[in-house]
Amino acid sequence: MTDSLPVYESLAVSVRRLIDATIRTEVSHEVIAAARAKIDSVTSELSAELMPGTFGERRIDDGQGVASGNVVIGVRNPSAPPLVIHRESDGSVWTEFTLGAAFEGPMGHVHGGVSAMILDHVLGATAHQPGRPAYTGTLTLRYHRRTQLRQPLRADAWIESQQGVKTFAVGQISDGEGVTVSAEGVFIHPRNS
Amino acid sequence: MTDSLPVYESLAVSVRRLIDATIRTEVSHEVIAAARAKIDSVTSELSAELMPGTFGERRIDDGQGVASGNVVIGVRNPSAPPLVIHRESDGSVWTEFTLGAAFEGPMGHVHGGVSAMILDHVLGATAHQPGRPAYTGTLTLRYHRRTQLRQPLRADAWIESQQGVKTFAVGQISDGEGVTVSAEGVFIHPRNS
Repeated sequence: MTDSLPVYESLAVSVRRLIDATIRTEVSHEVIAAARAKIDSVTSELSAELMPGTFGERRIDDGQGVASGNVVIGVRNPSAPPLVIHRESDGSVWTEFTLGAAFEGPMGHVHGGVSAMILDHVLGATAHQPGRPAYTGTLTLRYHRRTQLRQPLRADAWIESQQGVKTFAVGQISDGEGVTVSAEGVFIHPRNS
Repeated sequence: MTDSLPVYESLAVSVRRLIDATIRTEVSHEVIAAARAKIDSVTSELSAELMPGTFGERRIDDGQGVASGNVVIGVRNPSAPPLVIHRESDGSVWTEFTLGAAFEGPMGHVHGGVSAMILDHVLGATAHQPGRPAYTGTLTLRYHRRTQLRQPLRADAWIESQQGVKTFAVGQISDGEGVTVSAEGVFIHPRNS
């Protein structure tokens, strides 16, 4: 499947698998040391031409989305799950995903901070519009019960109301049994945007 | 410096550098394809012996901390910054860190969700005690202004009050100019812990 992806995305998919193996490997120290040398050599090769700063700071248009480096949705960012955000005509957004070993907090469970990160993103996505970004003003999270790793999860968010530059959004993460974390937030369009 | 680290930590340091290069590389598609093949081969080698599930779910004591896989502080987790949490005798905690391209949200800035993740962790750390974990009940974040990537940052958290199983904690992320994000949260010790 990954062979059909753009080349930079395929690289991120491979590094995402490597992250999981790095956390979970139990091979000998000798194999680890050899692996590390190979990784350092690949990093050198990739670093032969490196954009200055971060992905979003590039000012060239090479057809890659500006959010490709984003820590939540960036297809070029191996640390991103990455979430695929779906938008409905009523302004609500949703995404389905599964989180692995790289997102652990309490044993076998999603870190509460990862749930916060995902909810910040999906609630913000209700307010965000192309060319008119929205920034988080406040965000309140309520943890109902723990969220499991390696189980299908879903995040939903929708707009409660809009007043001037402010969008009031609510949302939740749920598993097969119901809601695990809920959130409400205020997102702000800067007046000059 | 990394040569003096335990071997699994050194591997994570190398993969962390690879993540940054993966996001920022501008080498040719041919070099990318070759890099990807090498990475897939390393992943196979590391996967020859893989712990089932996630790091925290291991039941063996091999001298590695149970939080080594943690997405915020885990030294074996390449996706973690990883934060080093310092504890003061008055119960407050603090950490100093710099976030790179892998943590981007708005162009050149830390994703608001990453700030939420870090504050969830450091506020929770005020309540967390060895053998007596604390879980987030509620967390409220207030974003004062944007937080920059590639600049020294600091997170602080302290206990406001404790009532039975509940710890009320507050905290903030700051840069050289002052506070960028502040937070308050309620953390709960399960009664059976």
